[in-house]
Formats: sequence, C-alpha cells, structure tokens
Amino acid sequence: MASIFTKIIQGEIPCYKIAEDKAHIAFLDIQPNAPGHTLCVPKQEIDKLLDMDAAAYAALMAFSREVALGLRQAVDCQRVGMSIIGLEVPHVHVHLIPLRSMQDATFQHKEALDKEEMQALARRIAAAIPSL
Amino acid sequence: MASIFTKIIQGEIPCYKIAEDKAHIAFLDIQPNAPGHTLCVPKQEIDKLLDMDAAAYAALMAFSREVALGLRQAVDCQRVGMSIIGLEVPHVHVHLIPLRSMQDATFQHKEALDKEEMQALARRIAAAIPSL
Repeated sequence: MASIFTKIIQGEIPCYKIAEDKAHIAFLDIQPNAPGHTLCVPKQEIDKLLDMDAAAYAALMAFSREVALGLRQAVDCQRVGMSIIGLEVPHVHVHLIPLRSMQDATFQHKEALDKEEMQALARRIAAAIPSL
Repeated sequence: MASIFTKIIQGEIPCYKIAEDKAHIAFLDIQPNAPGHTLCVPKQEIDKLLDMDAAAYAALMAFSREVALGLRQAVDCQRVGMSIIGLEVPHVHVHLIPLRSMQDATFQHKEALDKEEMQALARRIAAAIPSL
C-alpha cells in the first residue's frame, strides 16, 4: 500500500507545499513541533534512510539544506533542527524544525495552527527558497 | 574559548572514539539516549549546521552515513535515527541514535552505562566501519 507521503506526492492527499524538485518534495508537517516544522521527502518510497544509496542520500540532504536555509530566513527561531526518525511513517522523511527551545526538538509537544496560518507559513517559507 | 568537542578533538578530554577522518570525528555520547548513541563532529568549530558551506555540510553528512551504517550493523535496533539540534554545545554535531522506540528519539531519557560497556560498544561499532 502506498505510504501517506506517496499519496501526498501523487496529489491524492493535499499538503501545504513548500518546495519540490524532480526527486523530492517539502511540505509542512500537519502536527508541527513548532510553527514552520517541515518534512522533506524523497519521491521514491523507501522506508529507511540508510537503505538509500549514497547518491540518493546525498541528494536528499542537499535538498533539505536548501529548504532549511529558506526556513531559517522565513521563521523566527534560534536555529533550524534536523531529525530523521521514521518510526511512524515507513517512508524516509527529514524533519526540519525551527527551534526556539529544547522542547521543540522532543516531539512531545505539538502546536495547533489553523488552515490560514499554515497556508501563510507555507507561502512565506516557499518565497524564501528561490532555488527550488 | 574552545568548545568541549574541540577539546576532545585536541585530545585534552578523552572520548570513546568510533571513527575519524581528516575533517571529522565520531565518538560515543556520554549521556546516551540509547546504547551506541554516537556524535559525528566536524573538526572545524562551527556553531550552526546551516553556517557550514554546501561542501562541508555534504562531507559531514557523508561521514555520518558511513558511521551510521556501522552502527546499524553493530547495535541491535529498529533503525538508526539522526538528529541535529545544537542548543547545548555550540559546535555542530550529528546525533546518531540506535532507535528501539520513540522514547530513544526524544532526548528525555538517558541510559547509564559503565566505562567497560562504553569501551566495548565503541570497539564493536568501530570494527563495523571498515571504511574509516
């Protein structure tokens, strides 16, 4: 069965899209640790980061860096955190989290943002990533 | 003042070393989320991941992948998580964490291992990284 991220990539499930290239897509996490929490996902459905070959891994990391640079510019934070965990959705995803405190990195607290706030955030972050 | 990681790199503070190349070092986190929790650190003291240029970032990520592949082989876990946070030590470090449950990824729980256990873990992980 297709992962929820594959369904997003195929347009079956909507998302707050941030950026996209041939092999990757970035969109807002709908259960954000902090406002602007973004997921970077390879379009190829692979479960584990370490099952990607060296080139696909490097490409995902380079894409994530471009998105993170835009995020840092668009969202007020101390720094942008990056986490790859993957215990819940079996499709590689890089969490980019605008960190203001350690709490934002623990995945124990979730922010509730409404649709308008999410749309405005996605637009602002996307505008800060001219390269994608 | 030199960061605690620079002091480790310069040999002023001991560590349970896993791997090293010209630009990076990997050693066990002494307050591990889970047994085998490893830090990958660039020898150049830079505070934030996104302040590294694209080449230095790519090299750190490639080094971290090699270490993570060894970690996956040497330590029993569901998958190896990767996190870059950096709110505590202002010197870029990639956490590689052998995950068995979400708790291992939250930085809320720490394992207590004695010196012999840490030494044995470091030796076992290092032996599983023939490329470094």
